Amino acid sequence: MATTTGVNSDLAKERNNSTFDVEELSNFIYRGPEKVKRRRYLHNLATKDPFFRKFKPWAFQTREEQYEICLQKHLYINKKCKELNLTEPVDKFFYTEAAAPHENSPIGLHTVMFIPTIEKQGTEEQKKRWLPLAESLKMIGTYAQTEMGHGTFIRGLETTATYDPRTREFILNSPTITSMKYWPGNLGKTTNHCLVMAQLYTQGKNCGIHMFMVQIRDLETHMPLAGIEVGDIGPKFGYGTNDNGFLRLSNVRIPRENMLMRYSKVLEDGTYVKPPNAKIAYGSMVLVRAAIVTDAARALAQACVISIRYSAVRRQTEVSPGGEEAQIIDYQTQQYRLFPLLATSYAMYFAGRFMYDFYLKTTAEIEGGNLDSMPQLHAISAGLKAFSSWMCSAGVETCRLCCGGHGYSHASGLPKIYIDVVPGCTYEGENNVMMLQVARFLMKMYGKLQNGEALPTFMQYMSTDLNKKSCMTEEVALNCLVMAYEHRAARMIRDAAASMEKLVQSGKSPVEAWNGSTVMLTWAAIAHCHAFVTKLFVETVVKSRMDSKVQSALTSLCKLYAVHGIVENLGGFIQDQFFDSKQVKILQKKLMQLLAEIRPNAVAFVDAFDYPDEVLQSCLGRYDGQVYQALYDYAKSSPMNEKEVLDSYYKYIKPAQNGKYQQYSKL
Amino acid sequence: MATTTGVNSDLAKERNNSTFDVEELSNFIYRGPEKVKRRRYLHNLATKDPFFRKFKPWAFQTREEQYEICLQKHLYINKKCKELNLTEPVDKFFYTEAAAPHENSPIGLHTVMFIPTIEKQGTEEQKKRWLPLAESLKMIGTYAQTEMGHGTFIRGLETTATYDPRTREFILNSPTITSMKYWPGNLGKTTNHCLVMAQLYTQGKNCGIHMFMVQIRDLETHMPLAGIEVGDIGPKFGYGTNDNGFLRLSNVRIPRENMLMRYSKVLEDGTYVKPPNAKIAYGSMVLVRAAIVTDAARALAQACVISIRYSAVRRQTEVSPGGEEAQIIDYQTQQYRLFPLLATSYAMYFAGRFMYDFYLKTTAEIEGGNLDSMPQLHAISAGLKAFSSWMCSAGVETCRLCCGGHGYSHASGLPKIYIDVVPGCTYEGENNVMMLQVARFLMKMYGKLQNGEALPTFMQYMSTDLNKKSCMTEEVALNCLVMAYEHRAARMIRDAAASMEKLVQSGKSPVEAWNGSTVMLTWAAIAHCHAFVTKLFVETVVKSRMDSKVQSALTSLCKLYAVHGIVENLGGFIQDQFFDSKQVKILQKKLMQLLAEIRPNAVAFVDAFDYPDEVLQSCLGRYDGQVYQALYDYAKSSPMNEKEVLDSYYKYIKPAQNGKYQQYSKL
Repeated sequence: MATTTGVNSDLAKERNNSTFDVEELSNFIYRGPEKVKRRRYLHNLATKDPFFRKFKPWAFQTREEQYEICLQKHLYINKKCKELNLTEPVDKFFYTEAAAPHENSPIGLHTVMFIPTIEKQGTEEQKKRWLPLAESLKMIGTYAQTEMGHGTFIRGLETTATYDPRTREFILNSPTITSMKYWPGNLGKTTNHCLVMAQLYTQGKNCGIHMFMVQIRDLETHMPLAGIEVGDIGPKFGYGTNDNGFLRLSNVRIPRENMLMRYSKVLEDGTYVKPPNAKIAYGSMVLVRAAIVTDAARALAQACVISIRYSAVRRQTEVSPGGEEAQIIDYQTQQYRLFPLLATSYAMYFAGRFMYDFYLKTTAEIEGGNLDSMPQLHAISAGLKAFSSWMCSAGVETCRLCCGGHGYSHASGLPKIYIDVVPGCTYEGENNVMMLQVARFLMKMYGKLQNGEALPTFMQYMSTDLNKKSCMTEEVALNCLVMAYEHRAARMIRDAAASMEKLVQSGKSPVEAWNGSTVMLTWAAIAHCHAFVTKLFVETVVKSRMDSKVQSALTSLCKLYAVHGIVENLGGFIQDQFFDSKQVKILQKKLMQLLAEIRPNAVAFVDAFDYPDEVLQSCLGRYDGQVYQALYDYAKSSPMNEKEVLDSYYKYIKPAQNGKYQQYSKL
Repeated sequence: MATTTGVNSDLAKERNNSTFDVEELSNFIYRGPEKVKRRRYLHNLATKDPFFRKFKPWAFQTREEQYEICLQKHLYINKKCKELNLTEPVDKFFYTEAAAPHENSPIGLHTVMFIPTIEKQGTEEQKKRWLPLAESLKMIGTYAQTEMGHGTFIRGLETTATYDPRTREFILNSPTITSMKYWPGNLGKTTNHCLVMAQLYTQGKNCGIHMFMVQIRDLETHMPLAGIEVGDIGPKFGYGTNDNGFLRLSNVRIPRENMLMRYSKVLEDGTYVKPPNAKIAYGSMVLVRAAIVTDAARALAQACVISIRYSAVRRQTEVSPGGEEAQIIDYQTQQYRLFPLLATSYAMYFAGRFMYDFYLKTTAEIEGGNLDSMPQLHAISAGLKAFSSWMCSAGVETCRLCCGGHGYSHASGLPKIYIDVVPGCTYEGENNVMMLQVARFLMKMYGKLQNGEALPTFMQYMSTDLNKKSCMTEEVALNCLVMAYEHRAARMIRDAAASMEKLVQSGKSPVEAWNGSTVMLTWAAIAHCHAFVTKLFVETVVKSRMDSKVQSALTSLCKLYAVHGIVENLGGFIQDQFFDSKQVKILQKKLMQLLAEIRPNAVAFVDAFDYPDEVLQSCLGRYDGQVYQALYDYAKSSPMNEKEVLDSYYKYIKPAQNGKYQQYSKL
């Protein structure tokens, strides 16, 4: 069987049939041809570097190898970024994305959390002392917040840092088993320092959570220092490349100067000095949440590339008896599962772009002393983080299931994307908790509305007249779609508030009323996020400058996103008769029409994300569509095939067969 | 820190607070105290056997070790079952479940598919020839149906078996790359025979798909025979213990007697003799689908045990400022996610029980020559297989996410349950295809209804008056709940039929009309299955004999299942105003009340499944609730911690740090 070459003919045909120029859409996604070029250049630097090609595929590595190989890669990336003078985070990101796709770095938190936290929360002196060492990797650090017994509820952390004025030191302790640090990335085996979040005690008083620089391993021998018990927490669903660790501290003494003191301070005599504003330290958390939105969008985009290309190549089942088997992308059920996810990947990508811009704008204001937008920034980042990670994780798994049996093989690349993206639902703020934080913000806004106070622009929809019915007609106009989402969110916010009020009237305390309404509050928060993302998508396609053919295609995709979301969550839109039955039928019919409308552009939409095969690492998602030869090659190279007959045959099967016998054909 | 002993006090309190006797519920689940005792005895045989304790935990094994260890276990199980005279499948199942939990057997298909297929489709002579060899493991076989290019669409298989009357042999070939067998379990390295599904050609004609016994490896050396290329397909999301394989056949000759000829035959001269009934061979497929329903229910039940016990132990976030942190099971949002899944696990378990009984009854009829119930058996098994595997897989993943960060660790046991259950959505009939087969059955029934013909009992709800509104009152009676599901299903069946009719009227062919309506058809099929499972649950709690306190608790759970399903899929129930807004509010309120009602029994409901810790293999789901000590022990035993300082430190980190330096504290 000769190796098939060239592009699969079905896929080639798809590419000829699209209504727009893929390059134009790439330009729009990545903000201009220059940026597309730069991204491609960086991807190429990595994919063409023989260093990254010398390792066996990820799925063939043991967990220990995954860690070791990924460490090598990331140390090399670190070196190369310096050599190539890649200093912009976005440049580093694209280079790394192609060099070690979906492989969580063993020195990642050093760059993403450890150094930025020193920069943001350290004094000038601390920065001068630590940053050069961190830059040269002499200090390799991480951020140790989560404990075995406490994740998202930070105030509940149990680790203690008690100031001893005699020696001018803090004494760090893990007083209980649950207080042990557990989960911090790279903590287990890689780092020699960490920033420990601990309850500060001084002069007999608890002063709340603060951050302390703790050396955990010897800089020469890498052995744990006295009072330190540290190690890897063991294998997980994914993240094999990351040595998430545990850490127990027993009377570990650090100098007073190791508390991060830009905002709060402990003076030599033990006097505690409060920070000027308690919330100011949350900035880096918001940035990480913003990053999660884009990460989630990217993961779903890649899963869509794989499953849509494969759906164009895969033929299965005769449509008419005896006829040719159809491309599975032509089945309405397959379109119904995949195209809304394709639309979601675009929606979330635009949401991530917005989030990042909004973060930059707001933090600039905050640095300038204007804290007005902080609650909004917090609510939007918490909401988008939770909404995007939920939608995209579930979407990736659906893409995997859309590839049938082959989706279950690591050859598809899809399980790896899933196990890499799904922790985003939990880390940096558990999603349900995030949604309740959004709900708290919404309830505050609702209170303002009741009091006739002004609302921030993005919350003004709350003042809509809830008796007004939908303007939806056969045209299915974008503004009627946005209005529907905003109507639903506004109604759900009102219903959640009403539920709390009723409980208070029945004699419950405000806390009990809140706890008795959290399901409705969560519904309201999700509906709010859904409206926010939909409106953003609509505004992006309506207001942005782009090629007109691209705009037309993207408008269909945007409509699909909005219509599908209504049809799939219909109850919330019609329980107050906002739509009448005729309008519901219009929307259901439109949904099927949109699937057919998007069909010829499906492959072009995923091609536009412009992911090289080296990033996708998928036999099914290859640009050339030669999926079957790739699956065969993958199978042949499986480590289980290194020996034709495994040792276990001689060791276990033969003895079980009890003695010799003839081949049955000779019986 | 001393090892904590005894049962966690929160969990102990939960067990005191339940309203019923757990043992009574176990008796009901497993059909009587004798069966509970037997099950416990079999579990104990396995868990107390030192053989099964000698291996390191599954998550610490490489894929190659997973295979080898599991092979050892299953050969041992095979031997022990003979020694212990465990001949009943249910006995073998319970013993195996505790001996190798969630570890797909490397010789499983030999027992589950290879031997039964010989028994069902072989001639007397073939059975006499092969069964003794198979029983003694001299022949180890599998069932090779799926090809790289064809899964659920069996008629499209490409492997050929061409009869050569000169030598009285069949010549087997894989004529294309896509025709290669790919995925058959245990095919890669373990088996020496397989039953190959191939297109039969004789006298120049294609006679369709038939089954052939092909020896693939030498019985002495285990080397592949001439013309055979065979191997493992490489690492997958899960199923590491299974050497799913690929197989290419090049002019492999087998004697004429190796075609399974109980029904169809090829005579010596090449004359083809048709089977008396073409559908009769599908029996074993139905049995496997029935088994998937129960497998799915079990997986979700185990995930519920883990996540509900953990939710009772885990305390997080002060409810009132400064107060004690609450058990997370007390949060309404946690209850809203977990309790409906608990209800689903019971619903699916009862559905699996029904399916198995129905299979036995129907196959007895079929054996007796009465084929009347075959279409129903097929439709019900296809529908329940798809519905249960979808709901339970998604449910297991939600249970995992309900355990926060720790759910992501293999210490939780939850990822393993997920990767073990989720392929059930794909194998033995891809779920979307299954649902369309159900839809085809429903459309036939709808046609009968239109023609005034009689309907099978379980389809009679279709004749309901769709203008009739719901009988729902504050009482939320079970019959009104069932009526709601049946109303929705009946309406959706009618809508799907109407959609097809409309397309035909607009000039489309029946095939095009079908393809243009498959989304609506799928909705109808899912609604039908949902109604079927709900009604079965209701009938089980209403009509079965059981302890009255158990009955009362189980009735709440059944109501929760039904009410939650309505609230979460509200649109389908109200788009034709079946419920009015007041009724919708009643249901939403009732849902919150049911969560509170079930709360004191949540732990009792999961305890009643009676899974020993050895089956759950979860630090979070332990009966004694000592989760944190278990997590700590898991971490300490991680293979990454065998060496305090990893080799990679010396090999990669040190050089990256460039030369010697002082500890920063001495600078």
